[in-house]
Amino acid sequence: MKKKVCVVIASRANYGRAKVLLQKIKNSKKLELQTVLAASSLLEKYGDLREILKKDKIKVNAEAFIVLEGENTLTMAKSTGIAIVELSSIFNNLKPDMVITIGDRYETIATAIAASYMNKILIHIQGGEITGSIDESVRHAITKLSHLHFASTVKSRNNIIRLGENKRNVYFSGCPSIDILSENNRKKLSHYVKKIGVGSDININNPFYLVVFHPVTTKYEKSYKQTQILINSIIRLNKQVIWLWPNVDAGSDGISKCIRINREKNKLDKFRFFKNFPVEIYNELLKSAHCLIGNSSSFIREASYLGSPSIIVGDRQLKREKSKNVGLVNFQENEIYKIVKKYEGKKFKKSRIYGDGKASARIVKILERLREINIQKSLNY
Amino acid sequence: MKKKVCVVIASRANYGRAKVLLQKIKNSKKLELQTVLAASSLLEKYGDLREILKKDKIKVNAEAFIVLEGENTLTMAKSTGIAIVELSSIFNNLKPDMVITIGDRYETIATAIAASYMNKILIHIQGGEITGSIDESVRHAITKLSHLHFASTVKSRNNIIRLGENKRNVYFSGCPSIDILSENNRKKLSHYVKKIGVGSDININNPFYLVVFHPVTTKYEKSYKQTQILINSIIRLNKQVIWLWPNVDAGSDGISKCIRINREKNKLDKFRFFKNFPVEIYNELLKSAHCLIGNSSSFIREASYLGSPSIIVGDRQLKREKSKNVGLVNFQENEIYKIVKKYEGKKFKKSRIYGDGKASARIVKILERLREINIQKSLNY
Amino acid sequence: MKKKVCVVIASRANYGRAKVLLQKIKNSKKLELQTVLAASSLLEKYGDLREILKKDKIKVNAEAFIVLEGENTLTMAKSTGIAIVELSSIFNNLKPDMVITIGDRYETIATAIAASYMNKILIHIQGGEITGSIDESVRHAITKLSHLHFASTVKSRNNIIRLGENKRNVYFSGCPSIDILSENNRKKLSHYVKKIGVGSDININNPFYLVVFHPVTTKYEKSYKQTQILINSIIRLNKQVIWLWPNVDAGSDGISKCIRINREKNKLDKFRFFKNFPVEIYNELLKSAHCLIGNSSSFIREASYLGSPSIIVGDRQLKREKSKNVGLVNFQENEIYKIVKKYEGKKFKKSRIYGDGKASARIVKILERLREINIQKSLNY
Amino acid sequence: MKKKVCVVIASRANYGRAKVLLQKIKNSKKLELQTVLAASSLLEKYGDLREILKKDKIKVNAEAFIVLEGENTLTMAKSTGIAIVELSSIFNNLKPDMVITIGDRYETIATAIAASYMNKILIHIQGGEITGSIDESVRHAITKLSHLHFASTVKSRNNIIRLGENKRNVYFSGCPSIDILSENNRKKLSHYVKKIGVGSDININNPFYLVVFHPVTTKYEKSYKQTQILINSIIRLNKQVIWLWPNVDAGSDGISKCIRINREKNKLDKFRFFKNFPVEIYNELLKSAHCLIGNSSSFIREASYLGSPSIIVGDRQLKREKSKNVGLVNFQENEIYKIVKKYEGKKFKKSRIYGDGKASARIVKILERLREINIQKSLNY
Repeated sequence: MKKKVCVVIASRANYGRAKVLLQKIKNSKKLELQTVLAASSLLEKYGDLREILKKDKIKVNAEAFIVLEGENTLTMAKSTGIAIVELSSIFNNLKPDMVITIGDRYETIATAIAASYMNKILIHIQGGEITGSIDESVRHAITKLSHLHFASTVKSRNNIIRLGENKRNVYFSGCPSIDILSENNRKKLSHYVKKIGVGSDININNPFYLVVFHPVTTKYEKSYKQTQILINSIIRLNKQVIWLWPNVDAGSDGISKCIRINREKNKLDKFRFFKNFPVEIYNELLKSAHCLIGNSSSFIREASYLGSPSIIVGDRQLKREKSKNVGLVNFQENEIYKIVKKYEGKKFKKSRIYGDGKASARIVKILERLREINIQKSLNY
Repeated sequence: MKKKVCVVIASRANYGRAKVLLQKIKNSKKLELQTVLAASSLLEKYGDLREILKKDKIKVNAEAFIVLEGENTLTMAKSTGIAIVELSSIFNNLKPDMVITIGDRYETIATAIAASYMNKILIHIQGGEITGSIDESVRHAITKLSHLHFASTVKSRNNIIRLGENKRNVYFSGCPSIDILSENNRKKLSHYVKKIGVGSDININNPFYLVVFHPVTTKYEKSYKQTQILINSIIRLNKQVIWLWPNVDAGSDGISKCIRINREKNKLDKFRFFKNFPVEIYNELLKSAHCLIGNSSSFIREASYLGSPSIIVGDRQLKREKSKNVGLVNFQENEIYKIVKKYEGKKFKKSRIYGDGKASARIVKILERLREINIQKSLNY
Repeated sequence: MKKKVCVVIASRANYGRAKVLLQKIKNSKKLELQTVLAASSLLEKYGDLREILKKDKIKVNAEAFIVLEGENTLTMAKSTGIAIVELSSIFNNLKPDMVITIGDRYETIATAIAASYMNKILIHIQGGEITGSIDESVRHAITKLSHLHFASTVKSRNNIIRLGENKRNVYFSGCPSIDILSENNRKKLSHYVKKIGVGSDININNPFYLVVFHPVTTKYEKSYKQTQILINSIIRLNKQVIWLWPNVDAGSDGISKCIRINREKNKLDKFRFFKNFPVEIYNELLKSAHCLIGNSSSFIREASYLGSPSIIVGDRQLKREKSKNVGLVNFQENEIYKIVKKYEGKKFKKSRIYGDGKASARIVKILERLREINIQKSLNY
Repeated sequence: MKKKVCVVIASRANYGRAKVLLQKIKNSKKLELQTVLAASSLLEKYGDLREILKKDKIKVNAEAFIVLEGENTLTMAKSTGIAIVELSSIFNNLKPDMVITIGDRYETIATAIAASYMNKILIHIQGGEITGSIDESVRHAITKLSHLHFASTVKSRNNIIRLGENKRNVYFSGCPSIDILSENNRKKLSHYVKKIGVGSDININNPFYLVVFHPVTTKYEKSYKQTQILINSIIRLNKQVIWLWPNVDAGSDGISKCIRINREKNKLDKFRFFKNFPVEIYNELLKSAHCLIGNSSSFIREASYLGSPSIIVGDRQLKREKSKNVGLVNFQENEIYKIVKKYEGKKFKKSRIYGDGKASARIVKILERLREINIQKSLNY
C-alpha cells in the first residue's frame, strides 16, 4: 500500500518551492500525494492557487481558511491557533502517514504542532537556516518537532544536527525551489507582463528591476517609511520596475498604503504592480531582471543558482548564506541608489550552495525507502 | 515602573512548581505579577486552583478554558490551537513585558507561541531536560522560541546552550519546585488524608505508598492494561495506598476506567483516591511515603532532593536525570513487586542535582536586573 | 441524483429520537444519508455513539469534537462557537443539500447557524414547543433560521406558523422519537441491567423507578441541593432505582458530585447507575418502570404515548404539553414522596399528542418530494 | 450601583447608528457604558473606528478580531463561530448586566448567542424589520434570543410582538440612526471630500450622486456583473460620483474587482472612492446628494427622514418599509438611467416612520428604569 504524504501549501511562495516535489510525489509508485491549501494560498488578493494547481493537475484534498483579518501581532498569533484547529481536523480526515511542512511561517509551525500531536511523521524542508528574526526562532522550533529534515545547504544540515537531531534523519537535499529553474519560459513572461498587473507598460527586452519587499514582522510600524525610501531610490534609478505586492503579514498594510499613496500622486510612472506570479513566470523574472531589489529570500536562494544581481535592502536576510551575486544595503536612499548602480546588469557565476536542481528527486527517493521511524525523539547529544 | 511578569499556570503540577516563584515575584519591588489560570487548573475534577490561589493570596488576572473534551490526539492538537486563540487575547489585555511558561505540555507551547508572535520576552523554566517522548520534542521547541532559560540541572543548562541559545541567557537556577520542600506540614497531612479523598481510611503513621501514574501520551490504548498490572502488584504488596487521579491527557480515560472497575469489584480495600492535593500536602506525601510508585517526574525531581525511595514504572521517565533514590522497572507484576520490596522504607542521601531550594530567588533577581533583550534570536553556533 | 441529507447527532438523546428517521433516509431511493456525530455523542463518559451506530449500520461521515471542559455558562457559549467552526468545515466537505437539526441545545443552534450561512436547506425537528427556559429561546431562534419544520404536536405546528413561517413549510409529523416505541426488547433489558451499570443489582420483574435528572441550565449552583432532595425522597420510597447520569451541561457537575457523595456514604443501596442506554433499552425502561421520576422530556413525550406514570420534579418541563400520565411536583422531599406514591404502578390511556409512530415515514416522504425552496425567507404575516 | 450596559459595535454602520445612544448611555447617572469594537470596525480597510471613537471620547473596553479572510459563505460561518468564542471571553471579563446588539449581521447573532448563553439581558435594536434575505432570518432569530426590543417602526414593533415576544418588552423607540441627522456639517463635508478618498476631484456645490452598493450575500458570484451594470448607467448619467467601498462580506470581492478594472481602464473620470466616512460626513452626504443610488438601508431609513431622493437597485431592500422618496429598479442599465433622471434633485416630504430623532433618549430612559427581567422567556401566545 502506498504511504500517504500530505503537503501543506500555505502561500504562492510555498507552491513555488514545492512544485517539482509535488509532481514527483504524485508520480511515485510508492507514495500517495495529499495536498492541503491553507492561509494566503486561498485568498484571491494574494493569488488564489486553486486555479494554478488545477492547470498543473495537482488535486487539492482539503482547504484551510485560517487568516484572521487585522494584520497585527495579535491576529498573527490567533491565526496560528485557528490553523492548528483546522489542520488537525484535516489530518484526522486524510489520515496521512507523513506530513511535509516547508519554511518558517506561522502556518508552518501550526502544521508542525497539529501533525506532531497527532503522531504523524513530520518532515521539514528548509530547516537549519540562519536568518535572525522571529521566523528563525519558529524555524528551529519546527526542527525540534520534526522527524525528518531536508536541508537546503550543507551548513543548514550541520546546524540541524547541532540542534540535537539524529544525523541519520538529516539530509542535505538542496532546496526544491532550485529544481524548477531549468525551465525556459521567456515567451510566457513577455505575454504575461503585458496582460496582467496594473500600472505602466513593461517591455521585458529593455532593462527592468524586480522588486519584492516584505515587511519585517516585528517592526511593522516602520514599514511605511522604509517603503518610501525604497520607492524614492528606485525612482531615481529611472528604469522599468516590476513590483510584487507583499504577503499577508503584520506590517504589510504599511507597505500597501505607501505604494497606493505614491500611485495616487502619479509618482510611479515606470512601475507595474502584480499581485502574484505563477512559479514559472516568477523564476523567469529572477533570470531576466536587470537587478533584483528588496528582501525576498528568493533573491538569495534562487538568484545564487542563477547568478542574477541582487540587492538586499535592510536586515531581513542579513544572516542568510549568500553567494557573490548579493549586495547588502540599509534603508538609505543614496546608498540603495549607488549599490544598484554597481550590481545591475551583471551576470555572476552560478553557485550550488542551495542545491544542484535535484532536491525533489532525492527527497522522494528517501521518502519511498523510509521505514519505521521513532516519533518519540530525544536529543542526540 | 514595574515590569509586568505574566505566569501561565496550566495545572496543579504547574502551581506546585511555581508557588514560591509566584510569591517572590509578587513581593518584588521591581516586578508586577500577573497570573493566568489555564487548562486543567480551572477544572474541578482535576482540582480547581482558584480556591488554593485565593488562600495563598495570589490574584488571578485571567482564566483560559481551553481543554476540549475527547482525550485523544485530535482534541489535544485542537486544545493547543484554542489555547493560542485564548492566550493571545489575554496577553493583549494584560500587556505583560515578560511571559513565564513552565514545562513541556501543550499549554506550555501554546503559551510560547502566543507570547513570541506577540513580541513578549518569553521565559522558559525546566528546559533542556531529556525525557524521550513527545513532551521532549515540545520542550526543545519551546526552548527555541524562548529568550531566557532557567534550567533545573547543570546538564539541562548545557543542553540548552548546545541547542544554540546564547549562554548569557541560560541560567542553572535549579528547579523552583525544590524551593518549597523545606516547609513542614505533617499535621496538615494527617488531617487532610482523613477528611478528603474516597476509599479506605489511611493512617499516615503506618507505612503507605504514594502512587501517581500518568498515561504515556502516544500509547494511550495500553493505559488500561498497564494500570491493571500496577494495581495487581500493589495489591500483593499489601500496604496502605494513596493514589492520585491522573492529569487530563490522551490515555487518562483508560487509567480512570481501570481504577473504577477494580473499585467496583472491591479489590482496592487499602486504597484511598484523591483528585488533587494542595502543594504542601503533596510535598509532605513525597517526604513521608514508604515508597513512591508510578511515573511522576516529582518522584525523580523532588524525591531526589528529599532522598525518598521511588520506583518508576515504565519508560515515561527513562531518560530523565536520576539520583540513587530511584529504581526503574517495566510493567511486569512480579518485577514491580520485587523492586518495591527492595526500595521501600529506605532513606537516601539528599541530592542537589535539581537545585538547592533557592531557584525562585535566583530567577527573580535576574528578572529584576533584566535589561533590553533582543527578541529576534539567532543560532549561537 | 440523490439529494444529500445531512443529520447532525449531538447526543445519545438525539440519536434515540432520530434512529428510525436515519434508517428511513438511508433506505430511501431518492435521498443519500450523511451522518455527523458531534459534541457529547463522541464522549465515552456520556456514551460513545460510534459503537451503537456501527451495530445499527449507520455510517458516520464526520465527527465534531466541540465540548470545551468547564461546564459553566462561558464554556457553553464557547462550545457553540467552536461547533460552528467545526460544522462549517464539515458541511463544506460533505456538501449536503439539506441539513437536519433536532431539538434546542447549543449544538442545534450551532448547526443551524453554520448551515444557514452556508446556504443549505435547514430542516428543524421539534420546533414550536413551549418549555420556558433558555432552550425555548434557542428553539424558536432555530425556527427562524430553518426552512422546513416538522412539529411534534399540533400546537407546536401552530406556534411555528404564528412565528411567521410559511405554513406550506410547517408539518405536523409527530415526533420521530415515538416511531421506535413499538419494538419489544424486554429480554434485552433484563440482560442489559445485569451486565452494565454500577451499584446494586436490579431485578426488572420487581418494581423499579427510572430516574433521569438534568440540571436546569441557568441555575446550576442549585443542582447539588436539588439532587439531594430528590435522593432523599427516593430513598424513602424504598424501591429499586435505575438512575441515568446527566448530560454534559452547566450544572451537571453538581448532580454528579451529590450522587458520588451519597454513594460514598453507602446511602444508595438499591440504586444502580448507568452512563447511557441504547435507544431500545431506554424505551423499554420507559415502558416497564413502576414510575418515571425526574425531569426528562421523554417522561412527557414518549411516556404519554406509552401511558407510563411519570413524575416531573421542578420547573424544567413546566410548560410542555402533557397528557394525564404526568404529575408535577416541586423540590420538596415530602411532596415528591407523596406524588410518586399516588402515580406509581398505574397504567394510563395512550395519548397521540406527540404523534402516532409514523413521523419518520412522513418526514422522508416530504423530503423526497421536496423541490426548490426559497432559502431567503420573509415573515409570513 | 450603575448597571453595566455593553454595546457591541461591529462596523462603521453600527457606530453611525449608535453614536447618540452611546453618548447618552455614557452620560447617564444610572448606567455605565462598556464599548466593544468587533469585526470590520477594527480593520483599517473598512475604516478603523478606534480613531473616531477617541475623538468622540468613547472609551473602548475590548476589541474582538473575528473576520476570517476568504469572503465566502464558509468563512462567514466560521467568523460567526470565532466571534462567539471571542465575545464570550469579553463578556466574562466585563461582566455587563445588559448587552446591546444592533441589526442583523453575523456579528449581531454572535453577540446574541454569547450573551444569552451567559445569562445577560440581551437588548436588540432594529428587530422586526422585513427585508427578505438571510439577514432577515438572522434578525428574527436574534429577536427570539433577546429580552428587550427597540423597534424602529410601528410595523416592526407589531412584528416583534407577533413573533411571540411579550409586548411589555417591545418598544417603538424609532431608529437611533435618525437621532444624529439634525447636526449640520456641510463645511466639514466640503473639507473632507477634498482631502480624503481617491479619484476625481468633487465639488459638492455641483450635483453629485452618492453610491453605496453592498453585495447580496447569497448570490455573490453575480456581484461583478451587477456592479458593471450599475457603473455603466452611472457613467451615462454624467455627473459627479461619490462611491463608498462595500462592507466585508461574501460577494464584496466581486464589487471591488469590478471597480478596480474600470478604474484601470480610466472609465471613472468623475468618480471619487472612499473607504469609509465619519458618521457626520456620511449623514451630510445623505442630505446633500443629488441622488442616492445603490442598496444601502440608509437610503431608505435615514433618507426617508431627510426626504432625499433615493434609487434602490436590485432586491436587497425590496421588502423594507419605504417612504415616497424611494424609487426601485432592477439591474438594467437603461432602467437605472431613467429612474435616476426622474428622481434626482427632488426634495420629498420628511417622513417619521423610522422615528422622530429621539430614539436614543427613549431607550436610555427605559434602560435606566429597567427592573428585574425574566431571562427565561416563553412564547407569549
